Amino acid sequence: MKTIVSTFEMQKFSEQARLRKKNIGLVPTMGYLHKGHLSLIAKAQRSCDVVITSIFVNPAQFSPNEDFARYPRNIEQDTQLCTSAGSTVLFVPPENEMYPEGYSTYVNVERLSSILEGKFRPTHFRGVTTVVAKLFSLTKPHKAFFGQKDAQQCVVIKKMVKDLNLGVEVVTAPIVREKDGLAMSSRNVYLSAEERSQALILYASLRRAHEMVDNGERNVAVVAGEVKQMIETKSSATIDYVAVVDAESLADIPSFERGIPALVALAVRFGSTRLIDNTIIKAR
Amino acid sequence: MKTIVSTFEMQKFSEQARLRKKNIGLVPTMGYLHKGHLSLIAKAQRSCDVVITSIFVNPAQFSPNEDFARYPRNIEQDTQLCTSAGSTVLFVPPENEMYPEGYSTYVNVERLSSILEGKFRPTHFRGVTTVVAKLFSLTKPHKAFFGQKDAQQCVVIKKMVKDLNLGVEVVTAPIVREKDGLAMSSRNVYLSAEERSQALILYASLRRAHEMVDNGERNVAVVAGEVKQMIETKSSATIDYVAVVDAESLADIPSFERGIPALVALAVRFGSTRLIDNTIIKAR
Repeated sequence: MKTIVSTFEMQKFSEQARLRKKNIGLVPTMGYLHKGHLSLIAKAQRSCDVVITSIFVNPAQFSPNEDFARYPRNIEQDTQLCTSAGSTVLFVPPENEMYPEGYSTYVNVERLSSILEGKFRPTHFRGVTTVVAKLFSLTKPHKAFFGQKDAQQCVVIKKMVKDLNLGVEVVTAPIVREKDGLAMSSRNVYLSAEERSQALILYASLRRAHEMVDNGERNVAVVAGEVKQMIETKSSATIDYVAVVDAESLADIPSFERGIPALVALAVRFGSTRLIDNTIIKAR
Repeated sequence: MKTIVSTFEMQKFSEQARLRKKNIGLVPTMGYLHKGHLSLIAKAQRSCDVVITSIFVNPAQFSPNEDFARYPRNIEQDTQLCTSAGSTVLFVPPENEMYPEGYSTYVNVERLSSILEGKFRPTHFRGVTTVVAKLFSLTKPHKAFFGQKDAQQCVVIKKMVKDLNLGVEVVTAPIVREKDGLAMSSRNVYLSAEERSQALILYASLRRAHEMVDNGERNVAVVAGEVKQMIETKSSATIDYVAVVDAESLADIPSFERGIPALVALAVRFGSTRLIDNTIIKAR
Protein backbone atom coordinates (compact mmCIF):
# COMPACT_ATOMS: atom_id res chain seq x y z
CA MET A 1 0.00 0.00 0.00
CA LYS A 2 1.17 3.49 -0.93
CA THR A 3 0.93 6.34 1.59
CA ILE A 4 0.38 9.86 0.25
CA VAL A 5 0.64 12.91 2.47
CA SER A 6 0.73 15.86 0.05
CA THR A 7 -2.57 17.11 -1.38
CA PHE A 8 -0.73 17.99 -4.59
CA GLU A 9 0.60 14.43 -4.96
CA MET A 10 -2.82 12.99 -4.18
CA GLN A 11 -4.51 15.01 -6.92
CA LYS A 12 -1.77 14.13 -9.43
CA PHE A 13 -2.08 10.43 -8.56
CA SER A 14 -5.86 10.48 -9.03
CA GLU A 15 -5.66 12.36 -12.34
CA GLN A 16 -3.20 9.77 -13.62
CA ALA A 17 -5.40 6.90 -12.41
CA ARG A 18 -8.40 8.47 -14.20
CA LEU A 19 -6.39 8.76 -17.42
CA ARG A 20 -5.43 5.07 -17.08
CA LYS A 21 -9.22 4.39 -16.83
CA LYS A 22 -8.95 3.03 -13.30
CA ASN A 23 -12.11 2.92 -11.23
CA ILE A 24 -11.40 4.90 -8.04
CA GLY A 25 -13.08 4.22 -4.69
CA LEU A 26 -12.72 6.57 -1.72
CA VAL A 27 -13.24 5.62 1.93
CA PRO A 28 -13.05 8.88 3.91
CA THR A 29 -12.35 8.33 7.62
CA MET A 30 -11.08 10.15 10.69
CA GLY A 31 -8.84 7.18 11.50
CA TYR A 32 -8.66 5.00 14.63
CA LEU A 33 -10.14 2.41 12.31
CA HIS A 34 -12.53 -0.29 13.48
CA LYS A 35 -14.38 -3.11 11.75
CA GLY A 36 -16.97 -0.66 10.43
CA HIS A 37 -14.29 1.19 8.46
CA LEU A 38 -12.71 -2.08 7.35
CA SER A 39 -16.04 -3.29 5.96
CA LEU A 40 -16.14 -0.13 3.82
CA ILE A 41 -12.60 -0.72 2.52
CA ALA A 42 -13.43 -4.36 1.75
CA LYS A 43 -16.60 -3.28 -0.04
CA ALA A 44 -14.68 -0.67 -2.05
CA GLN A 45 -12.08 -3.23 -2.99
CA ARG A 46 -14.71 -5.50 -4.52
CA SER A 47 -15.81 -2.90 -7.10
CA CYS A 48 -12.87 -0.50 -7.59
CA ASP A 49 -9.38 -0.81 -9.11
CA VAL A 50 -7.93 1.77 -6.75
CA VAL A 51 -9.11 2.12 -3.13
CA ILE A 52 -8.07 5.34 -1.43
CA THR A 53 -8.58 5.42 2.34
CA SER A 54 -8.24 8.92 3.73
CA ILE A 55 -7.50 9.61 7.37
CA PHE A 56 -8.10 13.17 8.48
CA VAL A 57 -9.48 14.30 11.82
CA ASN A 58 -11.40 17.22 10.37
CA PRO A 59 -11.42 20.23 12.71
CA ALA A 60 -14.21 21.89 10.72
CA GLN A 61 -16.76 19.31 11.86
CA PHE A 62 -16.04 19.73 15.57
CA SER A 63 -17.36 22.70 17.51
CA PRO A 64 -15.00 24.38 20.01
CA ASN A 65 -16.52 22.51 22.98
CA GLU A 66 -16.23 19.09 21.32
CA ASP A 67 -13.55 16.39 21.41
CA PHE A 68 -11.28 17.38 18.49
CA ALA A 69 -8.10 17.53 20.58
CA ARG A 70 -8.68 14.22 22.37
CA TYR A 71 -10.16 12.34 19.39
CA PRO A 72 -8.27 9.01 19.36
CA ARG A 73 -5.42 8.61 16.84
CA ASN A 74 -3.19 5.65 15.98
CA ILE A 75 -1.67 5.99 12.55
CA GLU A 76 0.65 2.95 12.82
CA GLN A 77 -2.23 0.60 13.64
CA ASP A 78 -4.43 2.27 10.99
CA THR A 79 -1.75 1.73 8.33
CA GLN A 80 -1.57 -1.99 9.14
CA LEU A 81 -5.36 -2.34 9.15
CA CYS A 82 -5.73 -0.51 5.82
CA THR A 83 -3.13 -2.72 4.19
CA SER A 84 -4.79 -5.93 5.39
CA ALA A 85 -8.25 -4.71 4.41
CA GLY A 86 -7.14 -4.12 0.81
CA SER A 87 -6.65 -0.37 0.56
CA THR A 88 -4.39 0.68 -2.34
CA VAL A 89 -3.58 4.16 -1.11
CA LEU A 90 -3.60 5.69 2.36
CA PHE A 91 -4.07 9.47 2.14
CA VAL A 92 -3.12 11.34 5.31
CA PRO A 93 -3.14 15.05 4.50
CA PRO A 94 -1.72 17.49 7.04
CA GLU A 95 -4.13 20.00 8.57
CA ASN A 96 -2.20 23.03 7.27
CA GLU A 97 -2.62 21.78 3.69
CA MET A 98 -6.33 21.08 4.08
CA TYR A 99 -7.04 24.35 5.90
CA PRO A 100 -4.18 26.75 5.24
CA GLU A 101 -4.19 30.14 6.96
CA GLY A 102 -7.05 32.29 5.69
CA TYR A 103 -9.15 29.30 4.61
CA SER A 104 -12.73 30.54 4.11
CA THR A 105 -14.79 28.42 1.68
CA TYR A 106 -17.58 26.22 2.96
CA VAL A 107 -20.12 23.92 1.32
CA ASN A 108 -23.44 23.78 3.12
CA VAL A 109 -26.51 21.63 2.53
CA GLU A 110 -29.25 23.78 3.99
CA ARG A 111 -32.18 22.35 5.98
CA LEU A 112 -30.86 18.73 6.09
CA SER A 113 -27.81 20.00 8.01
CA SER A 114 -29.82 21.80 10.65
CA ILE A 115 -32.19 19.05 11.83
CA LEU A 116 -31.56 16.04 14.15
CA GLU A 117 -27.77 16.00 14.76
CA GLY A 118 -27.61 19.52 13.32
CA LYS A 119 -29.76 20.88 16.17
CA PHE A 120 -27.13 19.73 18.68
CA ARG A 121 -24.09 20.28 16.44
CA PRO A 122 -24.99 23.36 14.34
CA THR A 123 -21.77 23.58 12.27
CA HIS A 124 -21.05 19.83 12.13
CA PHE A 125 -22.43 18.96 8.69
CA ARG A 126 -21.07 22.12 7.13
CA GLY A 127 -17.65 20.83 8.19
CA VAL A 128 -18.42 17.36 6.85
CA THR A 129 -19.67 18.49 3.44
CA THR A 130 -16.76 20.92 3.08
CA VAL A 131 -14.10 18.31 3.80
CA VAL A 132 -15.84 15.67 1.67
CA ALA A 133 -16.07 18.12 -1.26
CA LYS A 134 -12.33 18.78 -0.83
CA LEU A 135 -11.51 15.06 -0.61
CA PHE A 136 -13.58 14.43 -3.75
CA SER A 137 -11.59 17.11 -5.61
CA LEU A 138 -8.32 15.62 -4.42
CA THR A 139 -9.09 11.92 -5.00
CA LYS A 140 -11.55 12.13 -7.94
CA PRO A 141 -13.47 9.01 -6.92
CA HIS A 142 -16.07 7.19 -9.00
CA LYS A 143 -17.53 5.82 -5.77
CA ALA A 144 -17.32 6.93 -2.15
CA PHE A 145 -18.16 4.67 0.78
CA PHE A 146 -19.85 5.77 4.01
CA GLY A 147 -21.12 3.86 7.03
CA GLN A 148 -24.84 3.76 7.74
CA LYS A 149 -24.08 4.46 11.41
CA ASP A 150 -23.86 8.12 10.39
CA ALA A 151 -27.27 7.88 8.72
CA GLN A 152 -27.88 11.62 8.47
CA GLN A 153 -24.36 12.15 7.08
CA CYS A 154 -25.15 9.67 4.29
CA VAL A 155 -28.31 11.60 3.38
CA VAL A 156 -26.56 14.99 3.54
CA ILE A 157 -23.66 13.83 1.36
CA LYS A 158 -25.97 12.25 -1.22
CA LYS A 159 -27.82 15.57 -1.39
CA MET A 160 -24.59 17.54 -1.86
CA VAL A 161 -23.45 15.19 -4.62
CA LYS A 162 -26.77 15.55 -6.43
CA ASP A 163 -27.04 19.33 -6.00
CA LEU A 164 -23.45 20.11 -6.99
CA ASN A 165 -23.43 17.53 -9.83
CA LEU A 166 -20.34 15.91 -8.32
CA GLY A 167 -20.85 12.71 -10.29
CA VAL A 168 -19.73 10.43 -7.45
CA GLU A 169 -21.72 7.32 -6.55
CA VAL A 170 -22.31 7.36 -2.78
CA VAL A 171 -22.34 3.80 -1.44
CA THR A 172 -23.46 3.08 2.11
CA ALA A 173 -22.69 -0.01 4.17
CA PRO A 174 -24.52 -1.46 7.19
CA ILE A 175 -23.62 -0.66 10.80
CA VAL A 176 -21.05 -3.08 12.22
CA ARG A 177 -21.63 -3.97 15.87
CA GLU A 178 -19.63 -5.51 18.69
CA LYS A 179 -20.79 -9.02 19.65
CA ASP A 180 -22.92 -7.54 22.42
CA GLY A 181 -24.63 -5.10 20.02
CA LEU A 182 -22.81 -1.82 20.66
CA ALA A 183 -22.32 -0.03 17.34
CA MET A 184 -18.63 0.24 16.44
CA SER A 185 -17.32 3.76 16.99
CA SER A 186 -13.88 5.26 17.49
CA ARG A 187 -15.45 7.11 20.43
CA ASN A 188 -16.32 3.90 22.32
CA VAL A 189 -12.84 4.04 23.92
CA TYR A 190 -14.00 7.05 25.93
CA LEU A 191 -16.58 4.93 27.83
CA SER A 192 -15.97 3.67 31.36
CA ALA A 193 -16.81 0.00 31.99
CA GLU A 194 -20.09 1.04 33.64
CA GLU A 195 -21.04 3.42 30.80
CA ARG A 196 -20.05 0.81 28.20
CA SER A 197 -22.40 -1.68 29.83
CA GLN A 198 -25.27 0.81 30.11
CA ALA A 199 -24.79 1.86 26.46
CA LEU A 200 -26.01 -1.58 25.37
CA ILE A 201 -29.51 -0.21 25.96
CA LEU A 202 -29.21 1.66 22.63
CA TYR A 203 -29.21 -1.44 20.47
CA ALA A 204 -31.71 -3.13 22.79
CA SER A 205 -34.11 -0.21 22.38
CA LEU A 206 -33.73 -0.22 18.60
CA ARG A 207 -34.48 -3.96 18.50
CA ARG A 208 -37.54 -3.27 20.66
CA ALA A 209 -38.68 -0.68 18.11
CA HIS A 210 -38.46 -3.31 15.36
CA GLU A 211 -40.40 -5.73 17.53
CA MET A 212 -43.17 -3.19 18.19
CA VAL A 213 -43.58 -2.40 14.48
CA ASP A 214 -43.46 -6.12 13.63
CA ASN A 215 -46.28 -6.60 16.15
CA GLY A 216 -48.40 -3.99 14.39
CA GLU A 217 -47.62 -0.73 16.16
CA ARG A 218 -47.71 2.06 13.58
CA ASN A 219 -47.68 5.16 15.77
CA VAL A 220 -44.27 6.84 15.67
CA ALA A 221 -44.80 8.67 18.98
CA VAL A 222 -45.59 5.40 20.78
CA VAL A 223 -42.49 3.64 19.45
CA ALA A 224 -40.19 6.64 20.10
CA GLY A 225 -41.70 6.96 23.57
CA GLU A 226 -40.87 3.36 24.43
CA VAL A 227 -37.29 3.72 23.10
CA LYS A 228 -36.83 6.82 25.27
CA GLN A 229 -38.26 5.12 28.34
CA MET A 230 -35.90 2.18 27.99
CA ILE A 231 -32.87 4.47 27.66
CA GLU A 232 -33.96 6.60 30.62
CA THR A 233 -33.71 3.58 32.93
CA LYS A 234 -29.93 3.87 32.65
CA SER A 235 -28.39 6.19 35.26
CA SER A 236 -25.54 7.55 33.13
CA ALA A 237 -27.70 8.19 30.03
CA THR A 238 -28.86 11.64 28.87
CA ILE A 239 -30.91 11.65 25.67
CA ASP A 240 -30.18 14.34 23.05
CA TYR A 241 -32.91 13.00 20.77
CA VAL A 242 -34.81 9.92 19.65
CA ALA A 243 -36.39 10.56 16.26
CA VAL A 244 -38.36 8.61 13.69
CA VAL A 245 -38.17 10.16 10.21
CA ASP A 246 -38.46 9.22 6.57
CA ALA A 247 -35.19 7.39 5.81
CA GLU A 248 -34.61 9.18 2.50
CA SER A 249 -35.79 12.74 3.12
CA LEU A 250 -35.37 12.82 6.93
CA ALA A 251 -38.81 14.47 7.02
CA ASP A 252 -40.96 13.93 10.11
CA ILE A 253 -43.54 11.17 9.76
CA PRO A 254 -46.53 10.51 12.02
CA SER A 255 -46.67 6.77 11.41
CA PHE A 256 -44.84 3.78 10.02
CA GLU A 257 -46.25 3.03 6.56
CA ARG A 258 -46.09 -0.36 4.86
CA GLY A 259 -43.04 -0.64 2.56
CA ILE A 260 -41.68 2.83 3.32
CA PRO A 261 -38.32 2.81 5.13
CA ALA A 262 -38.37 4.80 8.36
CA LEU A 263 -35.18 5.78 10.15
CA VAL A 264 -35.13 5.49 13.94
CA ALA A 265 -32.14 7.61 14.96
CA LEU A 266 -30.88 8.53 18.39
CA ALA A 267 -28.10 10.40 20.13
CA VAL A 268 -27.45 9.72 23.81
CA ARG A 269 -24.69 10.89 26.11
CA PHE A 270 -23.25 8.40 28.58
CA GLY A 271 -21.29 10.53 31.01
CA SER A 272 -19.33 12.87 28.73
CA THR A 273 -19.37 10.50 25.74
CA ARG A 274 -21.95 11.12 23.07
CA LEU A 275 -23.05 8.06 21.07
CA ILE A 276 -25.31 7.82 18.05
CA ASP A 277 -27.07 4.76 16.69
CA ASN A 278 -29.93 4.03 14.32
CA THR A 279 -31.89 1.43 12.47
CA ILE A 280 -34.14 1.39 9.43
CA ILE A 281 -37.59 -0.12 9.89
CA LYS A 282 -39.86 -1.02 7.01
CA ALA A 283 -43.35 -1.95 8.22
CA ARG A 284 -44.83 -5.03 6.57
CA MET B 1 -20.27 24.13 -32.89
CA LYS B 2 -22.19 21.61 -30.81
CA THR B 3 -25.02 22.75 -28.52
CA ILE B 4 -25.63 20.75 -25.34
CA VAL B 5 -28.69 21.33 -23.17
CA SER B 6 -28.76 18.37 -20.79
CA THR B 7 -26.50 18.44 -17.72
CA PHE B 8 -26.13 14.66 -18.01
CA GLU B 9 -24.92 14.94 -21.63
CA MET B 10 -22.58 17.77 -20.71
CA GLN B 11 -20.89 15.75 -17.97
CA LYS B 12 -20.61 12.68 -20.22
CA PHE B 13 -19.08 14.81 -23.01
CA SER B 14 -16.50 16.32 -20.63
CA GLU B 15 -15.56 12.95 -19.13
CA GLN B 16 -14.98 11.58 -22.62
CA ALA B 17 -12.93 14.64 -23.60
CA ARG B 18 -10.78 14.19 -20.47
CA LEU B 19 -10.20 10.51 -21.31
CA ARG B 20 -9.13 11.57 -24.82
CA LYS B 21 -6.63 13.91 -23.07
CA LYS B 22 -8.25 17.04 -24.47
CA ASN B 23 -7.50 20.31 -22.71
CA ILE B 24 -10.89 21.80 -21.73
CA GLY B 25 -11.54 25.54 -21.38
CA LEU B 26 -14.76 26.91 -19.87
CA VAL B 27 -16.17 30.40 -20.48
CA PRO B 28 -19.14 30.75 -18.10
CA THR B 29 -21.54 33.53 -19.11
CA MET B 30 -25.09 34.71 -18.58
CA GLY B 31 -25.47 35.25 -22.34
CA TYR B 32 -26.37 38.39 -24.30
CA LEU B 33 -22.75 38.20 -25.36
CA HIS B 34 -20.63 41.25 -26.08
CA LYS B 35 -17.01 41.77 -27.12
CA GLY B 36 -15.85 41.19 -23.55
CA HIS B 37 -17.24 37.64 -23.62
CA LEU B 38 -15.89 37.08 -27.13
CA SER B 39 -12.39 38.06 -26.00
CA LEU B 40 -12.64 35.33 -23.33
CA ILE B 41 -13.71 32.73 -25.91
CA ALA B 42 -10.90 33.77 -28.24
CA LYS B 43 -8.41 33.58 -25.38
CA ALA B 44 -9.69 30.12 -24.40
CA GLN B 45 -9.41 28.95 -27.98
CA ARG B 46 -5.73 29.84 -28.11
CA SER B 47 -4.80 27.45 -25.27
CA CYS B 48 -7.51 24.76 -25.13
CA ASP B 49 -8.57 21.89 -27.44
CA VAL B 50 -12.21 22.17 -26.38
CA VAL B 51 -13.87 25.49 -25.54
CA ILE B 52 -17.17 25.22 -23.71
CA THR B 53 -19.17 28.44 -23.49
CA SER B 54 -21.99 28.17 -20.98
CA ILE B 55 -25.01 30.46 -21.04
CA PHE B 56 -27.12 30.41 -17.91
CA VAL B 57 -28.86 33.37 -16.31
CA ASN B 58 -28.28 32.18 -12.78
CA PRO B 59 -31.21 33.01 -10.48
CA ALA B 60 -29.12 32.27 -7.36
CA GLN B 61 -26.94 35.34 -7.92
CA PHE B 62 -29.86 37.77 -8.18
CA SER B 63 -31.70 38.97 -5.12
CA PRO B 64 -35.51 39.18 -5.30
CA ASN B 65 -35.43 42.95 -5.99
CA GLU B 66 -32.90 42.66 -8.82
CA ASP B 67 -33.23 42.32 -12.59
CA PHE B 68 -33.36 38.52 -13.06
CA ALA B 69 -36.64 38.52 -14.98
CA ARG B 70 -35.72 41.37 -17.32
CA TYR B 71 -32.05 40.39 -17.77
CA PRO B 72 -31.50 40.57 -21.57
CA ARG B 73 -31.52 37.29 -23.52
CA ASN B 74 -30.87 36.50 -27.19
CA ILE B 75 -29.89 32.89 -27.70
CA GLU B 76 -29.94 32.99 -31.54
CA GLN B 77 -27.48 35.88 -31.68
CA ASP B 78 -25.36 34.32 -28.90
CA THR B 79 -25.14 31.05 -30.84
CA GLN B 80 -23.85 32.87 -33.92
CA LEU B 81 -21.36 34.91 -31.90
CA CYS B 82 -20.04 31.82 -30.08
CA THR B 83 -19.52 29.97 -33.35
CA SER B 84 -17.61 32.87 -34.94
CA ALA B 85 -15.52 33.40 -31.81
CA GLY B 86 -14.31 29.78 -31.85
CA SER B 87 -16.36 28.05 -29.17
CA THR B 88 -16.51 24.25 -29.59
CA VAL B 89 -19.52 23.64 -27.39
CA LEU B 90 -22.38 25.87 -26.32
CA PHE B 91 -23.86 24.62 -23.02
CA VAL B 92 -27.31 26.01 -22.25
CA PRO B 93 -28.68 24.11 -19.26
CA PRO B 94 -32.33 24.57 -18.30
CA GLU B 95 -33.04 26.13 -14.91
CA ASN B 96 -34.97 23.09 -13.63
CA GLU B 97 -31.90 20.89 -14.20
CA MET B 98 -29.51 23.32 -12.51
CA TYR B 99 -31.84 23.98 -9.57
CA PRO B 100 -34.39 21.19 -9.38
CA GLU B 101 -37.14 21.40 -6.76
CA GLY B 102 -35.70 21.08 -3.26
CA TYR B 103 -32.26 22.32 -4.30
CA SER B 104 -30.39 23.30 -1.12
CA THR B 105 -26.58 23.14 -1.44
CA TYR B 106 -24.53 26.33 -1.54
CA VAL B 107 -20.82 27.09 -1.75
CA ASN B 108 -19.80 30.23 0.09
CA VAL B 109 -16.48 32.04 0.27
CA GLU B 110 -16.76 33.84 3.58
CA ARG B 111 -15.43 37.39 4.14
CA LEU B 112 -14.50 38.04 0.48
CA SER B 113 -18.17 37.60 -0.46
CA SER B 114 -19.45 40.09 2.08
CA ILE B 115 -17.31 43.15 1.28
CA LEU B 116 -17.59 45.71 -1.58
CA GLU B 117 -20.27 44.30 -3.96
CA GLY B 118 -21.27 41.88 -1.19
CA LYS B 119 -22.36 44.76 1.08
CA PHE B 120 -24.91 45.81 -1.53
CA ARG B 121 -25.69 42.33 -2.87
CA PRO B 122 -25.43 40.06 0.21
CA THR B 123 -26.27 36.72 -1.49
CA HIS B 124 -24.74 37.53 -4.89
CA PHE B 125 -21.36 35.79 -4.60
CA ARG B 126 -22.85 32.77 -2.85
CA GLY B 127 -24.95 32.36 -6.00
CA VAL B 128 -21.91 32.87 -8.23
CA THR B 129 -19.64 30.41 -6.42
CA THR B 130 -22.43 27.83 -6.25
CA VAL B 131 -23.18 27.95 -9.97
CA VAL B 132 -19.50 28.03 -10.91
CA ALA B 133 -18.81 24.99 -8.70
CA LYS B 134 -21.70 23.21 -10.48
CA LEU B 135 -20.46 24.27 -13.93
CA PHE B 136 -16.96 23.03 -13.04
CA SER B 137 -18.40 19.63 -12.04
CA LEU B 138 -20.39 19.45 -15.27
CA THR B 139 -17.70 20.63 -17.71
CA LYS B 140 -14.50 19.47 -15.92
CA PRO B 141 -12.37 22.33 -17.26
CA HIS B 142 -8.59 22.60 -17.02
CA LYS B 143 -8.96 26.37 -17.36
CA ALA B 144 -11.86 28.76 -16.77
CA PHE B 145 -11.98 32.28 -18.18
CA PHE B 146 -13.45 35.32 -16.40
CA GLY B 147 -13.53 39.01 -17.28
CA GLN B 148 -11.63 41.48 -15.12
CA LYS B 149 -14.67 43.76 -15.18
CA ASP B 150 -16.05 41.58 -12.37
CA ALA B 151 -12.83 42.05 -10.42
CA GLN B 152 -14.18 40.87 -7.08
CA GLN B 153 -15.77 37.83 -8.74
CA CYS B 154 -12.34 36.85 -10.10
CA VAL B 155 -10.82 37.07 -6.61
CA VAL B 156 -13.70 35.15 -5.00
CA ILE B 157 -13.58 32.36 -7.59
CA LYS B 158 -9.79 32.01 -7.33
CA LYS B 159 -10.23 31.67 -3.56
CA MET B 160 -12.94 29.00 -3.96
CA VAL B 161 -10.77 27.05 -6.38
CA LYS B 162 -7.80 27.16 -4.00
CA ASP B 163 -9.81 26.34 -0.85
CA LEU B 164 -11.81 23.48 -2.38
CA ASN B 165 -8.80 22.11 -4.31
CA LEU B 166 -10.79 22.30 -7.54
CA GLY B 167 -7.66 22.08 -9.68
CA VAL B 168 -8.93 24.55 -12.29
CA GLU B 169 -6.68 27.33 -13.58
CA VAL B 170 -8.62 30.60 -13.36
CA VAL B 171 -7.62 32.92 -16.22
CA THR B 172 -8.73 36.55 -16.25
CA ALA B 173 -8.88 38.86 -19.25
CA PRO B 174 -8.86 42.67 -19.42
CA ILE B 175 -11.99 44.80 -19.49
CA VAL B 176 -13.21 45.46 -23.03
CA ARG B 177 -14.62 48.97 -23.53
CA GLU B 178 -16.77 50.73 -26.09
CA LYS B 179 -14.88 53.28 -28.22
CA ASP B 180 -15.98 56.03 -25.85
CA GLY B 181 -14.71 54.16 -22.79
CA LEU B 182 -17.88 52.64 -21.31
CA ALA B 183 -17.08 49.12 -20.05
CA MET B 184 -18.93 46.46 -22.07
CA SER B 185 -21.86 45.03 -20.10
CA SER B 186 -25.03 43.19 -21.02
CA ARG B 187 -26.78 45.67 -18.73
CA ASN B 188 -25.76 48.72 -20.82
CA VAL B 189 -28.94 48.19 -22.90
CA TYR B 190 -30.97 49.35 -19.89
CA LEU B 191 -29.47 52.88 -20.08
CA SER B 192 -31.35 55.84 -21.61
CA ALA B 193 -29.34 58.01 -24.02
CA GLU B 194 -28.87 60.59 -21.28
CA GLU B 195 -27.76 58.01 -18.68
CA ARG B 196 -25.47 56.35 -21.25
CA SER B 197 -23.76 59.67 -21.84
CA GLN B 198 -23.44 60.47 -18.13
CA ALA B 199 -22.04 56.97 -17.44
CA LEU B 200 -18.88 57.89 -19.38
CA ILE B 201 -17.81 59.65 -16.19
CA LEU B 202 -16.91 56.22 -14.74
CA TYR B 203 -14.04 55.57 -17.10
CA ALA B 204 -13.04 59.23 -17.01
CA SER B 205 -12.81 59.13 -13.22
CA LEU B 206 -10.74 55.92 -13.30
CA ARG B 207 -8.33 57.52 -15.79
CA ARG B 208 -8.12 60.54 -13.48
CA ALA B 209 -7.17 58.17 -10.61
CA HIS B 210 -4.31 56.79 -12.74
CA GLU B 211 -3.21 60.33 -13.54
CA MET B 212 -3.20 61.36 -9.88
CA VAL B 213 -1.10 58.36 -8.84
CA ASP B 214 1.22 58.91 -11.82
CA ASN B 215 1.65 62.49 -10.59
CA GLY B 216 2.72 61.25 -7.17
CA GLU B 217 -0.49 61.16 -5.12
CA ARG B 218 -0.28 58.17 -2.76
CA ASN B 219 -3.20 58.82 -0.41
CA VAL B 220 -6.07 56.45 -1.17
CA ALA B 221 -8.68 58.72 0.46
CA VAL B 222 -7.64 61.66 -1.71
CA VAL B 223 -7.84 59.65 -4.94
CA ALA B 224 -11.15 57.99 -4.00
CA GLY B 225 -12.50 61.40 -2.97
CA GLU B 226 -11.72 62.90 -6.36
CA VAL B 227 -13.27 59.93 -8.21
CA LYS B 228 -16.45 60.34 -6.13
CA GLN B 229 -16.56 64.09 -6.72
CA MET B 230 -16.32 63.64 -10.47
CA ILE B 231 -19.14 61.08 -10.51
CA GLU B 232 -21.34 63.23 -8.26
CA THR B 233 -21.36 65.98 -10.91
CA LYS B 234 -23.68 63.75 -12.98
CA SER B 235 -27.35 64.28 -12.20
CA SER B 236 -28.50 60.66 -12.77
CA ALA B 237 -25.62 59.07 -10.81
CA THR B 238 -25.95 57.54 -7.33
CA ILE B 239 -22.76 56.03 -5.94
CA ASP B 240 -22.98 52.66 -4.14
CA TYR B 241 -19.24 52.67 -3.44
CA VAL B 242 -15.85 53.80 -4.68
CA ALA B 243 -13.15 51.68 -3.06
CA VAL B 244 -9.40 51.31 -3.29
CA VAL B 245 -8.19 47.93 -2.03
CA ASP B 246 -5.31 45.50 -2.46
CA ALA B 247 -5.94 43.89 -5.85
CA GLU B 248 -5.20 40.35 -4.66
CA SER B 249 -6.65 40.21 -1.16
CA LEU B 250 -9.25 43.02 -1.50
CA ALA B 251 -8.03 44.24 1.89
CA ASP B 252 -8.32 47.94 2.65
CA ILE B 253 -5.13 49.91 2.05
CA PRO B 254 -4.32 53.44 3.28
CA SER B 255 -1.96 54.30 0.42
CA PHE B 256 -0.74 53.32 -3.02
CA GLU B 257 2.60 51.53 -2.60
CA ARG B 258 5.23 51.27 -5.30
CA GLY B 259 4.91 48.01 -7.30
CA ILE B 260 1.85 46.74 -5.41
CA PRO B 261 -1.30 46.49 -7.54
CA ALA B 262 -4.24 48.39 -6.07
CA LEU B 263 -7.78 47.87 -7.32
CA VAL B 264 -9.96 50.95 -7.74
CA ALA B 265 -13.47 49.54 -7.92
CA LEU B 266 -16.78 51.32 -8.10
CA ALA B 267 -20.49 50.66 -8.40
CA VAL B 268 -22.77 53.47 -9.48
CA ARG B 269 -26.45 53.53 -10.33
CA PHE B 270 -27.58 55.64 -13.29
CA GLY B 271 -31.33 55.84 -12.90
CA SER B 272 -32.34 52.25 -12.16
CA THR B 273 -29.30 50.71 -13.89
CA ARG B 274 -26.41 49.67 -11.69
CA LEU B 275 -22.99 49.68 -13.38
CA ILE B 276 -19.65 48.49 -12.05
CA ASP B 277 -16.21 49.35 -13.34
CA ASN B 278 -12.65 49.15 -12.08
CA THR B 279 -8.99 49.56 -12.86
CA ILE B 280 -5.75 48.31 -11.40
CA ILE B 281 -3.16 50.93 -10.50
CA LYS B 282 0.45 50.09 -9.73
CA ALA B 283 2.31 53.12 -8.38
CA ARG B 284 5.76 53.63 -9.85
